[in-house]
Amino acid sequence: MKKHNFYAGPSILPEFTKEKTAEAAVNFAGTGLSVMEVSHRSKEFVAVMDEAQALVKELLHVPDGYSVLFLQGGASTQFLMVPYNLMNKKAAYLNTGSWASKAIKEAKLFGEVVEVASSKDANFNYIPKGYEVPADAEYFHYTTNNTIYGTEILKEPEVAMPLVADMSSDIFSRPLDVSKYAVIYAGAQKNLGPSGATLVIVKDDALGKVERTIPTMLDYKIHADKGSMFNTPSTLAVFGCLQTLIWLKDQGGVEAIEKVNIEKASILYDELDRNKLFVPTVADPEDRSRMNVTFVMAPEYGEVEKEFLEFATARGMIGIKGHRSVGGFRASIYNAMPTDSVKALVETMQEFEKIR
Amino acid sequence: MKKHNFYAGPSILPEFTKEKTAEAAVNFAGTGLSVMEVSHRSKEFVAVMDEAQALVKELLHVPDGYSVLFLQGGASTQFLMVPYNLMNKKAAYLNTGSWASKAIKEAKLFGEVVEVASSKDANFNYIPKGYEVPADAEYFHYTTNNTIYGTEILKEPEVAMPLVADMSSDIFSRPLDVSKYAVIYAGAQKNLGPSGATLVIVKDDALGKVERTIPTMLDYKIHADKGSMFNTPSTLAVFGCLQTLIWLKDQGGVEAIEKVNIEKASILYDELDRNKLFVPTVADPEDRSRMNVTFVMAPEYGEVEKEFLEFATARGMIGIKGHRSVGGFRASIYNAMPTDSVKALVETMQEFEKIR
Repeated sequence: MKKHNFYAGPSILPEFTKEKTAEAAVNFAGTGLSVMEVSHRSKEFVAVMDEAQALVKELLHVPDGYSVLFLQGGASTQFLMVPYNLMNKKAAYLNTGSWASKAIKEAKLFGEVVEVASSKDANFNYIPKGYEVPADAEYFHYTTNNTIYGTEILKEPEVAMPLVADMSSDIFSRPLDVSKYAVIYAGAQKNLGPSGATLVIVKDDALGKVERTIPTMLDYKIHADKGSMFNTPSTLAVFGCLQTLIWLKDQGGVEAIEKVNIEKASILYDELDRNKLFVPTVADPEDRSRMNVTFVMAPEYGEVEKEFLEFATARGMIGIKGHRSVGGFRASIYNAMPTDSVKALVETMQEFEKIR
Repeated sequence: MKKHNFYAGPSILPEFTKEKTAEAAVNFAGTGLSVMEVSHRSKEFVAVMDEAQALVKELLHVPDGYSVLFLQGGASTQFLMVPYNLMNKKAAYLNTGSWASKAIKEAKLFGEVVEVASSKDANFNYIPKGYEVPADAEYFHYTTNNTIYGTEILKEPEVAMPLVADMSSDIFSRPLDVSKYAVIYAGAQKNLGPSGATLVIVKDDALGKVERTIPTMLDYKIHADKGSMFNTPSTLAVFGCLQTLIWLKDQGGVEAIEKVNIEKASILYDELDRNKLFVPTVADPEDRSRMNVTFVMAPEYGEVEKEFLEFATARGMIGIKGHRSVGGFRASIYNAMPTDSVKALVETMQEFEKIR
């Protein structure tokens, strides 16, 4: 039976990425050695790092004056590195969920954090709007996509200061205007590659402005100056990321994949709005995530939740159980998810509707 | 032509590790999915993490009261985490090379660092002895093996306070007495697995004694309490580490591999002491590393250094160029290096001797 991988992360990757990584695990770049056992300073691996950085710049149209880094430690380490490197006195944060809350917690170790708005009052099932951002905030931090709650901010907030964004779960799903950002960061394990690589795009002239001493490994400038080779990078993971970037370019880049993502999300949300058994957890279509579609049983069908999970699992749907803090279901439909898998889920929902 | 992989790191891994990782990159634990695309909280990956931690405990005879962590960021991040978590006022460090120096630099951000001895006066080509350690130092930090300079400390220093050791390049090469340590850490990319995983063995009751606030991702206790699953671990890299641990157990564990390592190192050092063309950079046999054998041309043969490199490379010897700060050659002969490859290098040196 075909499996449809709806895991929220680590999550579905292109067949191309998996096959190329498997090949390089035993024979990398024709060396006869594994990518895991050659020096990160070998010409073969340096070429991997260079190409990965160049493709990030090409696909996201990164302007001059930015450095592309492949670090370690996930977005959770960026929650700390961002204020360590950028905050002198005050920063503004938008609270749209669990990850944003964790970013806020770490930033408070470094200065005054203004939480400009929060949707915690409704379990983060909407994106706050109409908030004011203090003019003296040094940057405005937000989370573009909220994996747990199924919300997404597709358009850059219009604020006077540089943006900083955690794009872990929707980077490369659509074009973006990098010039508005001081820092963009993303754990690799959704739209990019294996967990263990963390992509950071940093504006060079946003650095060097804080007075505190930054520990070496937390200093963006150190990593930027050394081209992400200050210490041994996560070589196998970076290799995997490169394969996905090559695949994405071959799909037509972020402009082309956005069209597919819009279509996939529409197919699923249309069904949720139609099918009487299910209710999407995010009511406002404008706030709905294209990456993580969260839904629960309609109140009158609450007792068949477990039954639907078993029904769908038996049909090859993997990883659709919702996060414990929201309940219900979550279908994560990242770049690599084929439209046919989304259709298969919709058909499963329709079949289940018939037998209830 | 067979290649003999003498890279210093990332470096040679067992065929078993490479083949199993390649297989799991496309089909992990019979799921039909890649290990890169299943949730780290799936039962299949949780089993990987649990088994890896259990095997570390078994192979190194880790006593009760210690936590085994698989983190990210390499040993370089541990240079920072160790003092963040353990140093209140004062710590003692032994300076045996570049990595020890970097550890000292980071520790100075947190308190008084006493460098008890250094071999910098002779480009770190020996291990300092007979130093005094201040009784009020909270821990004593040292680097067990110095990859660049080819020195190794095989016996735990006899000091009154807990030890902390960077064992990146010789962990699992021999038995050790874990009970003497507050923290042992190691980047995976020598004797363990792919870069991107960092092994930390931490004594639970050494934690919680500093007064400073520790950022979440730098706090050992957070990671220990969550079984290395506080944030998404480097799943593919941890999978690779597990394979090497399984392989090592199958070899007879660290007790058996130590015998092989002693034999391999002897074969090479014996040739260096005999062959008139070469001189080992570490004179005292007691200080010589079993993992990284560093040597230069004898002064009267200095002009043929480049020629030997080409001669050896043409015979399949990969990665034997010495680090730029030492020059000459370095043969890294970690656990996974077959004795036959060491013999092949020795034969190459003998052949070269004949034609000079």
